[in-house]
Amino acid sequence: MMITMELVGIFFFAVAGSLMAARRGFDILGSVFLGGVCGLGGGVVRDLILNQAPATFQNPVYFTPAILAALCVYALTPSVQRLHRLILVFDAGGLALFSMTGTLKALDNGVNPVTAILLGVITAVGGGLLRDVISNVTPDLFNPGDIYAIPAILGAALSALAWHLEIFQPAVAIAIGSTTFLLRLCALRFNWRIPMAAGHWYRQQSPPPMGGPQRHF
Amino acid sequence: MMITMELVGIFFFAVAGSLMAARRGFDILGSVFLGGVCGLGGGVVRDLILNQAPATFQNPVYFTPAILAALCVYALTPSVQRLHRLILVFDAGGLALFSMTGTLKALDNGVNPVTAILLGVITAVGGGLLRDVISNVTPDLFNPGDIYAIPAILGAALSALAWHLEIFQPAVAIAIGSTTFLLRLCALRFNWRIPMAAGHWYRQQSPPPMGGPQRHF
Amino acid sequence: MMITMELVGIFFFAVAGSLMAARRGFDILGSVFLGGVCGLGGGVVRDLILNQAPATFQNPVYFTPAILAALCVYALTPSVQRLHRLILVFDAGGLALFSMTGTLKALDNGVNPVTAILLGVITAVGGGLLRDVISNVTPDLFNPGDIYAIPAILGAALSALAWHLEIFQPAVAIAIGSTTFLLRLCALRFNWRIPMAAGHWYRQQSPPPMGGPQRHF
Repeated sequence: MMITMELVGIFFFAVAGSLMAARRGFDILGSVFLGGVCGLGGGVVRDLILNQAPATFQNPVYFTPAILAALCVYALTPSVQRLHRLILVFDAGGLALFSMTGTLKALDNGVNPVTAILLGVITAVGGGLLRDVISNVTPDLFNPGDIYAIPAILGAALSALAWHLEIFQPAVAIAIGSTTFLLRLCALRFNWRIPMAAGHWYRQQSPPPMGGPQRHF
Repeated sequence: MMITMELVGIFFFAVAGSLMAARRGFDILGSVFLGGVCGLGGGVVRDLILNQAPATFQNPVYFTPAILAALCVYALTPSVQRLHRLILVFDAGGLALFSMTGTLKALDNGVNPVTAILLGVITAVGGGLLRDVISNVTPDLFNPGDIYAIPAILGAALSALAWHLEIFQPAVAIAIGSTTFLLRLCALRFNWRIPMAAGHWYRQQSPPPMGGPQRHF
Repeated sequence: MMITMELVGIFFFAVAGSLMAARRGFDILGSVFLGGVCGLGGGVVRDLILNQAPATFQNPVYFTPAILAALCVYALTPSVQRLHRLILVFDAGGLALFSMTGTLKALDNGVNPVTAILLGVITAVGGGLLRDVISNVTPDLFNPGDIYAIPAILGAALSALAWHLEIFQPAVAIAIGSTTFLLRLCALRFNWRIPMAAGHWYRQQSPPPMGGPQRHF
């Protein structure tokens, strides 16, 4: 049951990776690779920080969603484009799932709660970040018109709280996951935003171009 | 003998890294750094995933090829440009070598065959991928006009097969390495390609620009 | 005392990360994240290579400078812009500090001196490199008009020497740190440079554009 949920989560993140490969004009092997990075990258980074051999590489079954996702994107690209909203919904599901499982795995390894929450967030957003870094685009995570990380932080924090109160049962897990999921969907639907990194300064200027390289100093 | 082969492989990958530094207008220290990343990065990532201290950092001799490569590129840039084909040949040699050694090291650490093949491929292509990511260019690995990863996958798979059949002797190693090497050269010579990530959709449009930043959704 | 110095170093690197987020138009959570990556990334990479659980994640106090830095940049962006020189001075302080502590931590883990120096340099420059890679800009580290890595190499080498001579006392540490710090400031003040990666070839051409994606071959 647990592994099925994980594979589903990996699959939907992998679709996002393969779609990126399609948009950037990569070939189908790049699509498999980018799907794998997007679906599995967050968990691998979490396990490296926990100083463990990544669980992903213990069982080859974790690689199958990436191959399936690349085939789906290859066969169904126009529909996938039209199914844009559906994909955002599935991505929200993956976000809700991974922020919970990542936090629990970290807590089971005996790290402190703050680190566990951070590792849960890294599990949820790390794959997409790696996908964008490898594809040489500005990470979607930093898109100021979209609050991707906030639902992940909330889901991870609630999971850590439930774990410490020793009430982490299936019903509680479903409640936490649903909250994260709905918060993400509301953020998309109602265009919720958080403040920019620069306070009042950039507001008076034209916004800096996204993506173009700029020197730091 | 083994270490000499490895140092030669690292050197030729490092030349590719230093050439990138030259093309991008970096300074000579950036050239050493980028050469080191390109020559050693794949093996470091493999060892991190195997949860071992990277072998590269146990013995400083592994860093010398990067310094040599940067000096060669500094002294011989015009010739190196003219020797374009020769470099592709040496790079193919490094690819053949690293896909074999990476797979064997993973198998010796007791991982399953699928993971071992994947780690062999990561060893072979990871350095070049890191070089491109750090240099802020779209990774060459995803170039749809070039099948870089296929020979590495074949070499890694044949190595894993030979290891499991317990016939991995010098003669077999030479046969596998040569096959990988020749497959890569044929791919270059005859312009072999594999399908794109997107099936029929993008074929009817102008291709998406390589490298320019694009939003994911 | 030691931890206070470390937190100060992390804070000033984190300000550089948050400023990058402000320049690129990211939101405030991206600012915290990028500040954390810039302030803590070098140490995390060093610890992963040493095959240890990163020290940063053992104690949540290490994350506070990133939050503080993001708040400072949010509140004070115009002043921070005007304080450009001051930031370069603090960054030089962080560089001096981290190249020393990184080398010592590596030596305490029993690695060879060359690797220890390299890990000290990685600790000092790794955070800024990760910041630039994640922000999708050409790393500042490779800026040929600025010798960022040379002072770090000198500081790491002097630290390793002092450690081997068993004279690493507070006075010696202050002397080494000051040397690194002053060397960095002199490099900025007098515009010191080192040779380019390409010898005579590119000198006769217009320089390759910084940042634009270029194919490797």
